Amino acid sequence: MPSEFDLIRRFFVRPTRQTLLGAGDDGALIAPTPGCELVISTDLLVEGTHFLSDTAPFDLGWKTLAVNVSDMAAMGAMPRWAMLAAALPAPASDGLKPFDWLDAFSRGFFACADAFKIDLIGGDTTRGPRAFCVTIMGEVPRGKALLRSGARVGDSIWISGTPGRAALGLAHLQSRASLTEPQLGQCLAALHRPQPRVALGLALRGLASAAIDVSDGLLADLVHILTASHCAAKLHIPHLPPAGLARDCYLSGGDDYELIFTLPATHHPFMATLAVELDLPLTCIGVITPNTSGTPGTFVLHDDQGLPITPARHGFDHFL
Amino acid sequence: MPSEFDLIRRFFVRPTRQTLLGAGDDGALIAPTPGCELVISTDLLVEGTHFLSDTAPFDLGWKTLAVNVSDMAAMGAMPRWAMLAAALPAPASDGLKPFDWLDAFSRGFFACADAFKIDLIGGDTTRGPRAFCVTIMGEVPRGKALLRSGARVGDSIWISGTPGRAALGLAHLQSRASLTEPQLGQCLAALHRPQPRVALGLALRGLASAAIDVSDGLLADLVHILTASHCAAKLHIPHLPPAGLARDCYLSGGDDYELIFTLPATHHPFMATLAVELDLPLTCIGVITPNTSGTPGTFVLHDDQGLPITPARHGFDHFL
Repeated sequence: MPSEFDLIRRFFVRPTRQTLLGAGDDGALIAPTPGCELVISTDLLVEGTHFLSDTAPFDLGWKTLAVNVSDMAAMGAMPRWAMLAAALPAPASDGLKPFDWLDAFSRGFFACADAFKIDLIGGDTTRGPRAFCVTIMGEVPRGKALLRSGARVGDSIWISGTPGRAALGLAHLQSRASLTEPQLGQCLAALHRPQPRVALGLALRGLASAAIDVSDGLLADLVHILTASHCAAKLHIPHLPPAGLARDCYLSGGDDYELIFTLPATHHPFMATLAVELDLPLTCIGVITPNTSGTPGTFVLHDDQGLPITPARHGFDHFL
Repeated sequence: MPSEFDLIRRFFVRPTRQTLLGAGDDGALIAPTPGCELVISTDLLVEGTHFLSDTAPFDLGWKTLAVNVSDMAAMGAMPRWAMLAAALPAPASDGLKPFDWLDAFSRGFFACADAFKIDLIGGDTTRGPRAFCVTIMGEVPRGKALLRSGARVGDSIWISGTPGRAALGLAHLQSRASLTEPQLGQCLAALHRPQPRVALGLALRGLASAAIDVSDGLLADLVHILTASHCAAKLHIPHLPPAGLARDCYLSGGDDYELIFTLPATHHPFMATLAVELDLPLTCIGVITPNTSGTPGTFVLHDDQGLPITPARHGFDHFL
């Protein structure tokens, strides 16, 4: 008789399209593309820390993979293969609901996998407090990966899309904000079904000098580029929302998975066309400056009148 | 001020030796060896399911990586890179012990990494019930991986080392067995510091027709080979312990990480020399037969008098 976990595994085994050997042996087998480097990233999502027990399982399945796909986008890599390890609590006594939950979770996971042509090639399933660990692998032509450390003085700083939406959506759900109907739809979509910017990451190969995805907040993640690149920044953000929750979310809201990137001046002219091609706003928000302060990751931020602003906080830390 | 998790990450960042870019960006970068396939495996270890809260952290660190290295051995792959994701509970109020614990855990983890020349290239750290997810990557020349599905009728079946020791050691700790001093040393070593059979796996490339590592128990893991290879087996194990705990542990004890492999008759003569070279017993325990029963993974097991034995159970399932 198949065990509960044999049954569970069936939700996660689907035919692979770019894999020599998928789940079912001691390891999966892949053939890396000659001339490419492999990019690998891993994320562990724990119930109560990264998601709530009442999160819709389809959304959670999508997001569990999407946050990893976003790491590939930020490296300029084409996502290709993923492993999924899951810890699952004992089923409730009726014995049925966990399968419904897993069915929806796996449909969300594979919806994201299909959208980005990723093979799920293996994993692990075990008993424990609910948690999911995805390891993702992607490919990038040799030497073409986008790193955090490549920003240079004089490069401009860009952001894709509209950061802050996921945080605003969360604020609405927590009754800390009241959004209009159309706003709410956009913000909940950003929160529940983030769209990793893979096409943008691929287009930025050979153009951007540095990139990172916004998982902790625009300012917090920009600081990671500034620190890794040993430089500072002067920010002047067009249409920055007025002081208040909307501004805080824009500057410091996590979970958006937009890309921040830096660009040498010679490449600016490409951005208008790229934004149209990708149907994605690309906004210049500042410039890289020398770091003269001695403190890593320093920046100054100006409002529309050119006056300096001090943000309430830089970003969200899951660990604090 | 560095956060608690910044401090924790310091235990896990060490210089890499075969990696283009290690921890600290959105992903790690590696250059796969031309002509090789990549083998990937992942394991999630959860406190209370796979280890107890009082497990010595150095041993746990070793074992967390070693069980993954063993998957590479079973595929005939050279282990090369690992990612580690960790969920960790909030520190106790004294604020010191968790760092001691993590210091010992990381020393155990890197002891294993150094023994097998593996680079830790990244990971994730988060708050949650204690759990560790390792993803390991290794390399094998194109077409040379050892699969579970390659056993053929007439191949002999082999086991490395002395399976059952880890289970006997656990039985002793749980007061279900009383071992002599030298036995106890061997059994606790097998339980706490399993030695993945990487050198054996590499030597078996081109010789073995199938392989698997013993994580669930000799019989349970043999059944995986039989099922994947669509065949059956006739087992006659030399020096099988008499009926009782020692026999049960030999046949069904998990956590040993020895290799079971199958071998075409023409390659038998190499095993005696290989056992000497590797200083590791290699024992022929049976032969692959056609599966005429219709039930996948059928086998018959005989005692020293040639009489059939029915084992109490096949193996240990973490999930039940």
